[in-house]
Amino acid sequence: MAAKVTLYSYWRSQAAFRVRIALALKGMKAEIVSLDLMKGEQFGEGYRALNPEAAVPTLIEGEGPPMIQSLAILEYLEETHPEPPLLPKDPRARAHARALGQVVAADVHPLIVPRVRQYLTGDLGLPEAKLRKWREHWLETGTRTLETMLARDARTGRFCIGDTPGYADVCLVPHVATARMLYQADLAKYPTVARIFEACMAQDAFAAAQPVHQPDAPLAG
Amino acid sequence: MAAKVTLYSYWRSQAAFRVRIALALKGMKAEIVSLDLMKGEQFGEGYRALNPEAAVPTLIEGEGPPMIQSLAILEYLEETHPEPPLLPKDPRARAHARALGQVVAADVHPLIVPRVRQYLTGDLGLPEAKLRKWREHWLETGTRTLETMLARDARTGRFCIGDTPGYADVCLVPHVATARMLYQADLAKYPTVARIFEACMAQDAFAAAQPVHQPDAPLAG
Repeated sequence: MAAKVTLYSYWRSQAAFRVRIALALKGMKAEIVSLDLMKGEQFGEGYRALNPEAAVPTLIEGEGPPMIQSLAILEYLEETHPEPPLLPKDPRARAHARALGQVVAADVHPLIVPRVRQYLTGDLGLPEAKLRKWREHWLETGTRTLETMLARDARTGRFCIGDTPGYADVCLVPHVATARMLYQADLAKYPTVARIFEACMAQDAFAAAQPVHQPDAPLAG
Repeated sequence: MAAKVTLYSYWRSQAAFRVRIALALKGMKAEIVSLDLMKGEQFGEGYRALNPEAAVPTLIEGEGPPMIQSLAILEYLEETHPEPPLLPKDPRARAHARALGQVVAADVHPLIVPRVRQYLTGDLGLPEAKLRKWREHWLETGTRTLETMLARDARTGRFCIGDTPGYADVCLVPHVATARMLYQADLAKYPTVARIFEACMAQDAFAAAQPVHQPDAPLAG
């Protein structure tokens, strides 16, 4: 029998979204425990004991210990549940997949998470309008870099690498979804990114993991 | 004969420092090509063709293609030059090593790189004093999280995981070195981090890779 998997999540978190997609692609069931980051539920002592960053996601499989950082969790899932693989076989293609993912997961997303937004507007006194500009600037920068990398690379297929969704797509989709949700990002300038986003969202694993379908998402309408 | 390895680097870049350490730990020789990020050399068209983010590091081994993103490069080096390993064998310990690394390499460092500092002071008009506060705040946050994670974990040894330096140490050392260089960070509050930093810097691979020993570092005195 498979060990129980628990994922601490928040409907709108890009990082939790990545792990939800990866679990679905691997065909793994997980109990989702929702934390309301806007209400500060991540700062409780109980949760901090699991995740000293007071952030999502945290994943616990079986006896634990808890694992944090979405990209570390993706690698763990790949190593312990290898089928279907999220990374290609060739080491250079694997590096390319990870680089695509990290362009948005390391170089964009950490700039716009709740703790950073709160620091900018609170401690540094940045007005809301400048915060919006900040968020859009880095999201656009990430999308532009993805487009450049994907449009020119012979390894790009129906998905970021070839014709099977994987690590890079798992990072691309939450990034694009955030840009669309926050400022109705116009993807016409990024045709390769737009095409891959649509191809992913046509797959159950991506569609079911998206923010609006999470149990803690505000009800539509 | 080993394929030629070229690393595009900048003496003060944390991300390039990580790769320099990893290469040294693996016993790999690389030709270092320095780019002066303060003079904008990374924005030349030739370099952008290698690295669409216009950032360092970029690594080329043999015929290429160029590889970007320091953490993707670390994984590539681990997969293609497995001895000595930078990651432990156990999948949960591997996740822990990667999480420790990403706490600083994904959640702190991207907030303080040159392009972000320039955007804050230029486009958003943040005064220099607030930029200093911003840098120190996130560097301290990262160090505090590392200390919490390392101090309580039975897997912590002389280094971040056990008694051999690896992935997490490769990320910890450039982070701590930056905090010390930028604002003479007081490590007394972080005894485990301080102890591991000293243990690393006593090793040739770490000491030789540090910023002040790079050919493009400004001459002392």
